[in-house]
Amino acid sequence: MVAVFKRELIQVIPNPPNERTFTLSTVTDKGHYISLRPLVKPTTEEEKKFPFEWGFGGRNTSVEIINVNSNSFKQNFVFELDLNEYLQIPNTHSGLINTLWTTWDSGCLEETGELFPFGKNKESVAFRELWQPIDPSKSVDFDHLTLKDGDDAHNGSKETSVALHIDNDTFVGLVVVAGNILQGILFKKNDNTIKGTNFIRGIIASEEKKEFTYSIKYGEDVTSFPLDLFTKHDSIKVGDVISQWKVIESNL
Amino acid sequence: MVAVFKRELIQVIPNPPNERTFTLSTVTDKGHYISLRPLVKPTTEEEKKFPFEWGFGGRNTSVEIINVNSNSFKQNFVFELDLNEYLQIPNTHSGLINTLWTTWDSGCLEETGELFPFGKNKESVAFRELWQPIDPSKSVDFDHLTLKDGDDAHNGSKETSVALHIDNDTFVGLVVVAGNILQGILFKKNDNTIKGTNFIRGIIASEEKKEFTYSIKYGEDVTSFPLDLFTKHDSIKVGDVISQWKVIESNL
Repeated sequence: MVAVFKRELIQVIPNPPNERTFTLSTVTDKGHYISLRPLVKPTTEEEKKFPFEWGFGGRNTSVEIINVNSNSFKQNFVFELDLNEYLQIPNTHSGLINTLWTTWDSGCLEETGELFPFGKNKESVAFRELWQPIDPSKSVDFDHLTLKDGDDAHNGSKETSVALHIDNDTFVGLVVVAGNILQGILFKKNDNTIKGTNFIRGIIASEEKKEFTYSIKYGEDVTSFPLDLFTKHDSIKVGDVISQWKVIESNL
Repeated sequence: MVAVFKRELIQVIPNPPNERTFTLSTVTDKGHYISLRPLVKPTTEEEKKFPFEWGFGGRNTSVEIINVNSNSFKQNFVFELDLNEYLQIPNTHSGLINTLWTTWDSGCLEETGELFPFGKNKESVAFRELWQPIDPSKSVDFDHLTLKDGDDAHNGSKETSVALHIDNDTFVGLVVVAGNILQGILFKKNDNTIKGTNFIRGIIASEEKKEFTYSIKYGEDVTSFPLDLFTKHDSIKVGDVISQWKVIESNL
């Protein structure tokens, strides 16, 4: 069930919907996931310096999926990697997030849920997001992603499905490859600023070469992402950061 | 400005949004347009017999476009071909529809407007639709349409742009080809039932052959659509319905 979803909108109810980001959520066969939400047109100085609405991810142990009926399911998340928590932003929802996903006849998935930015027993904020399934095998560039019917999105497939995890003294991070799309998050521990934040997003631009073209390479430690996934691992030096990434899933 | 848009949702405010159709709106270079809205999963007996939410179209003289600012414009329609009007459905909006289109940073276009189903000075119904631009050149099958950034959607292009119109004693209709996608509406005059309603939607499945694969071929007179657009017109017999279609735009 390699899956890639492009967000079509976010609505913080009762405000009208909008979409300022180019959000992709990628999920491996085994359910490791990353969602990166870069702003398409950062406007303020602050946005230009750090053009991200949000980013989060986790291993499959951090999400529980419960079937409701043939076209809806619950996903209950406790993100392992959460930008807002990392940056210690005030009034950030912390801990369990319950969401309900409903597949519309069109194939898009509507996600609804509630956040509790002021604490568990305080006022909640209801939200709606709409997700367009993307064909993870056919996408050869980010400007022309290929739509996929939602019914197929969770089919078993032969698409590339890889996840790497790191959690050492200095870093915590995750890299996920779903089909042709790679996303990664790497936080420097005990930093908790945008200086310690690293995001990466790549796409396999050529099927033959298995080389990624990167549309996001953000952060001082971006070179510590394991980017040579398709080359022999003998080349990784013992003792560097990259050698400490653990392959937690791979069908390569 | 050949453009193809896939609808992501419709919301009749204040109800929640949904999308039960696979709606494509296609627009030629010169602004002739058709929107077909087939239900993806018709449920009731009535829906199975006639699996369409709506269909409409018109020549460029039936729509006025007014720029508002760099990312929004008004479209004021008086549809020439309107399924609901044709079927004389009670409480159907008739005449001018004012809509506002806003391009979100993501590239999708939000359309908002009001309908007056009970007459001009009566209660109005506000709606919102969200449109995902589709690349009209890259789409080779309807299951895997290719997303396009909204900013490019109105670029001049070399995409196929064709419109044919018919208005004789028996029929009124329009066929529009925008890039690889063909859509058509044909109403039998003085019938005003679903028996007189014909819809067609095709896609060029092979670039070399210029042959259409049809996903919609609905109606008793569907063979009266001009489907041999890319073959020589000498083959059209004088006197039949097809010969009476007028080419009102073509860059073939």
